[in-house]
Amino acid sequence: MYDPRLRTEHDVTDISDINKAVELLRGQVFRTPAIPSPGLSRLTGADVYLKLENQQVTGSFKVRGSYVRMAALSDAERKAGVVAASAGNHAQGVGYHAERLGVPATIYMPANTPFTKVARTEALGAKVILEGETVAESRVIAMQAAEADGKVFIHPYDDPLVIAGQGTATVEFLEDVPDLETIIVPIGGGGLAAGCCIAAAAHKSTLEVVGAQADAYPSMAQVFRGEKPHGKGATIADGIAVKEPGVLTTPILKAHMKDIAVVMEADIERAVQIMVDVQRLIVEGSGAVPLAVLLESPERFKGRRVGLMVSGGNIDSRLLSSVLMRGLVRDGRLARLRISLTDTPGSLGAVTGIIGIKGGNIVDVLHQRMFRDVPVKEAEVDIAIETIDADHIREIMDALEAEGFGTRLLSDTSLN
Amino acid sequence: MYDPRLRTEHDVTDISDINKAVELLRGQVFRTPAIPSPGLSRLTGADVYLKLENQQVTGSFKVRGSYVRMAALSDAERKAGVVAASAGNHAQGVGYHAERLGVPATIYMPANTPFTKVARTEALGAKVILEGETVAESRVIAMQAAEADGKVFIHPYDDPLVIAGQGTATVEFLEDVPDLETIIVPIGGGGLAAGCCIAAAAHKSTLEVVGAQADAYPSMAQVFRGEKPHGKGATIADGIAVKEPGVLTTPILKAHMKDIAVVMEADIERAVQIMVDVQRLIVEGSGAVPLAVLLESPERFKGRRVGLMVSGGNIDSRLLSSVLMRGLVRDGRLARLRISLTDTPGSLGAVTGIIGIKGGNIVDVLHQRMFRDVPVKEAEVDIAIETIDADHIREIMDALEAEGFGTRLLSDTSLN
Repeated sequence: MYDPRLRTEHDVTDISDINKAVELLRGQVFRTPAIPSPGLSRLTGADVYLKLENQQVTGSFKVRGSYVRMAALSDAERKAGVVAASAGNHAQGVGYHAERLGVPATIYMPANTPFTKVARTEALGAKVILEGETVAESRVIAMQAAEADGKVFIHPYDDPLVIAGQGTATVEFLEDVPDLETIIVPIGGGGLAAGCCIAAAAHKSTLEVVGAQADAYPSMAQVFRGEKPHGKGATIADGIAVKEPGVLTTPILKAHMKDIAVVMEADIERAVQIMVDVQRLIVEGSGAVPLAVLLESPERFKGRRVGLMVSGGNIDSRLLSSVLMRGLVRDGRLARLRISLTDTPGSLGAVTGIIGIKGGNIVDVLHQRMFRDVPVKEAEVDIAIETIDADHIREIMDALEAEGFGTRLLSDTSLN
Repeated sequence: MYDPRLRTEHDVTDISDINKAVELLRGQVFRTPAIPSPGLSRLTGADVYLKLENQQVTGSFKVRGSYVRMAALSDAERKAGVVAASAGNHAQGVGYHAERLGVPATIYMPANTPFTKVARTEALGAKVILEGETVAESRVIAMQAAEADGKVFIHPYDDPLVIAGQGTATVEFLEDVPDLETIIVPIGGGGLAAGCCIAAAAHKSTLEVVGAQADAYPSMAQVFRGEKPHGKGATIADGIAVKEPGVLTTPILKAHMKDIAVVMEADIERAVQIMVDVQRLIVEGSGAVPLAVLLESPERFKGRRVGLMVSGGNIDSRLLSSVLMRGLVRDGRLARLRISLTDTPGSLGAVTGIIGIKGGNIVDVLHQRMFRDVPVKEAEVDIAIETIDADHIREIMDALEAEGFGTRLLSDTSLN
């Protein structure tokens, strides 16, 4: 079976490995920009900088580690081909370099993987095999297949060269913003975070690294507390939905990491929305988790120079669109009202008239008289309205009530 | 009245003015990154680079020109305050620097300006006055008010210092990617484009600058053809919805610009969507117009090193969300079917069963039996489905037809 410690000359990644990886990656992946964010700084009170790995080739940092690992393949290993298990960014990373290096790649994905993810990996020339119920199951199958076929399994995080490759993102970040005081980095298996810890410690001993996890998969935080790690279900941060932290990454994090903050699903969704609204960046759930941590504890980071590792931008358009719409509801810019009418001609006209006068823009109307639990001489109408903010919604509701139309807010604007 | 030629020492901006502006802007605005786009390069066949002014302070290049103009104010002028007319990026630019420089700013916006835009400018400390039906009308009112009150009117483009400021974006772009062969730049009033022309000509005489306009406001293209300029209506590219090109900018563009490409509304919308899907960037309509030009004529730019001036990212979340949803429909990933049922128990169950077996994910169902023009023993149901692509939609429709359910596609996937 796969043992990360057997794969390379030594089993602990150190800063010299990361520096070697920096050299190796020159011209192979994009040296992404690190930018200041006046908007997020104003919002949080910290001095915020962003490392834009969402602008990386294939849209995530994963191409760094996979290249460093694949560049170390022997000629025979290259010819035999590589195997990996991932439905997301790691699949893209391995597929991208396999195509460029002319190495055959086989990627295992869970059976229920959306077609678009399969297609995106196949487009890079990789062979995709759908097997297993979860990524963890696919990984076991992939490791066995690699073993049986004499191919190298490219681990997404538990490999010293992969950790060294991911660490290059932090080296670049610190080259561009040398006086960072805190880096907040997402943790799934811990490859990016472990590389970050090593690079940060080598840069300056007082530089704090804070890990960020989703409440649905707080596995590394659980290991830190001495608990058995587990995952709880669905999360928008699917890139870090990892049940078992790495064998190699865990001790590195334990040695260097200040602590791990765990954020709730609603906070991650909110962070994705804020990246869009304030920073005009598309960030996937896991890439927004560091911002969610910052937004959750602004007092903790106030006045500090904080770097957020924006690890990736691969979020589905449908999901993004839903997040934006839900954000509008949360901000009171979209509301759904249920209004009681007397079932007489003209009452719907009166209601829409009041909404118009009050400056609400009607988006849709559902007028249903048959199936509601209201007296037979009454009716109800559901109206979706574009509004300015929660106060504006209140104002429209008050105006309707004042004219005798009982009004109830169906959309929940207090989610935040 | 306002005369751009009376405002500064000379009336023609040249490269020395832009170079002075580069010095002046150091530390005042963000030196935005220029990045390669492997994704857009693959899509178009050109070697594509992006200048990320959507990441600029206030989300657009406008802060460059407004700073250069405002830095030239005398002490008395600073004390008296400045006036501008804009509901968008220019208002943000003037407001941003006014706050930092301690200069009182009054911004005129059209009476129907959305509240969020007013609030965003007021948040910077500027006084907002809602007057006029259009931005052009607001501008006339603002100029008259400035004259009456002895305040300096900050023009959005027709000012030598503003042009010099906007030109700095191109200087930086060419510093970062010196061997660009083409720059595609959006044109509204022409300030950004004029600065781009001057900087490009000074950099290399063979560097071509192509202007990009929206079909709804092709005013500069019309002037180039000797026609009277006019605007036609609503556009998603509201940042360049300018009816009258500048007095100062027009001759600069005529002298230096290769030509002006005009793109249709659907192409601009598509370009915004592609920036999200491929590049993970939020770009406003006018900022996406250069990409729309490239996508429209890939053969023209094939193999060339092309720089796209991504001028800004200030697009409303609601609009962005709609663009993404429409993109899903266009790509066949969201479909609405109208299906005829016999009005008997179980037929809706049969229909949803078939859709499920075929892998369609039902989003919503509208079952209406009273108001349709179908025989009394029949009924119709509208079902919205998440699908893989247009072939998948076809497959689901065929399966329904094969079981005797007449099916019609309501959503138009051939928009593209």
